[in-house]
Amino acid sequence: MQDAALVLYTDSSPNGFKATIALEETGLPYRLVHVDIDRGEHRQAEFLALNPAGRIPVLVDRKAGIVLFESAAILLYLAQSSGQLLEQAAQPRWAAITWLMYHSASVGPLLGQRVHFECFEAVPNPAAQKRYRALTEDAFAVLDQRLATQSWLAGESYSIADIASFAWLHIAALVGFDFSHYQHLNRWYRQVEQRPAVQRGIRLPAPATGP
Amino acid sequence: MQDAALVLYTDSSPNGFKATIALEETGLPYRLVHVDIDRGEHRQAEFLALNPAGRIPVLVDRKAGIVLFESAAILLYLAQSSGQLLEQAAQPRWAAITWLMYHSASVGPLLGQRVHFECFEAVPNPAAQKRYRALTEDAFAVLDQRLATQSWLAGESYSIADIASFAWLHIAALVGFDFSHYQHLNRWYRQVEQRPAVQRGIRLPAPATGP
Ligand SMILES: N[C@@H](CCC(=O)N[C@@H](CS)C(=O)NCC(=O)O)C(=O)O
Ligand SMILES: N[C@@H](CCC(=O)N[C@@H](CS)C(=O)NCC(=O)O)C(=O)O
Repeated sequence: MQDAALVLYTDSSPNGFKATIALEETGLPYRLVHVDIDRGEHRQAEFLALNPAGRIPVLVDRKAGIVLFESAAILLYLAQSSGQLLEQAAQPRWAAITWLMYHSASVGPLLGQRVHFECFEAVPNPAAQKRYRALTEDAFAVLDQRLATQSWLAGESYSIADIASFAWLHIAALVGFDFSHYQHLNRWYRQVEQRPAVQRGIRLPAPATGP
Repeated sequence: MQDAALVLYTDSSPNGFKATIALEETGLPYRLVHVDIDRGEHRQAEFLALNPAGRIPVLVDRKAGIVLFESAAILLYLAQSSGQLLEQAAQPRWAAITWLMYHSASVGPLLGQRVHFECFEAVPNPAAQKRYRALTEDAFAVLDQRLATQSWLAGESYSIADIASFAWLHIAALVGFDFSHYQHLNRWYRQVEQRPAVQRGIRLPAPATGP
């Protein structure tokens, strides 16, 4: 896809998977550029010109002359470009946007802090570990309650809200945050996981993170 | 405005100000319901039925039968309902959405952690304080760089991206996080602060937080 209008800059990571899964789901042609975080490629001038915050994912639409960063913005753009993964009718549409924002502002960032303090902080910080464990468990309970009465986060249709939440929970599961006792959340997780586009998305870019 | 279609449930707080400022800017009629967090009103069944996560702000559009939580979702909805604060043309529109998401996912949640560890944690946690100070200072530098070349976060027009970022920086300023040496960020902050709708928004609901 050398001449595709859409170019995705990403690495194998939770926020990156949101974009790869959505692209695989929609079938929009795209070119993938691996930005290797371990090698510091996200801090190089060429990449910082696309996203001054130095984070993946970044999506460039070369035809429209648009550069997007922040995974939630990318998901909204892919939904609009494809006419998929976000209902047109007001109620399910705004439910999807609400749950996408809940993930993006209230769940993902806290899971990020929990991963940091449980997996990466050299000096153990029990107070911070306890704080982020409690806050993310609260979030799992909120998602579980929602999925007790709805098939998908937005209601009856699979949407960008499910993709965003799944991508981060996939990493949470890999690092051993167990949410299997939240039975509705777990039921939903297994359903999303079985989708062929999701299986492709979490393996991009190769080499994939985890099994 | 007892019979207004829009009802905003909020308290005097950073995420609440995003909604009050946007409503005041657009001139859409609305009714304001004060949910007193100090009195635990956000944990009562009636409010949890609107937002199972128990957080303000919540916006209800009674005419459309839509309930929204998450400040970023509310801002997008108010922009769509009013046709204001978000350009129609693709480039400035997606720039606004990108910077709104940058605030919502990458700045606001980290400022929240910094406020927690610097202002509210009973037992000082220097490592966590240092982490969130560094991460939020990085974010200030990113915003400063953007505002060195653009009048507003989305480019030439004031938008929901400015409202979201301002609302949180207003609280940051009140609790003493000094960002005045980021000169472009500071210039922009003073400009947003002078808007009459912003001055009204940060005083709602009364009694206001801070001076
Ligand atoms: N809120 C952003 C977060 C992006 C983010 O943190 N990306 C990570 C990978 S998942 C990254 O680029 N990390 C490199 C770094 O922070 O230096 C989004 O949703 O896109
Ligand atoms: N990501 C959410 C955050 C909402 C939030 O944290 N609201 C605070 C007030 S600024 C709240 O309701 N706090 C009460 C609590 O957490 O118990 C948003 O942007 O609306």
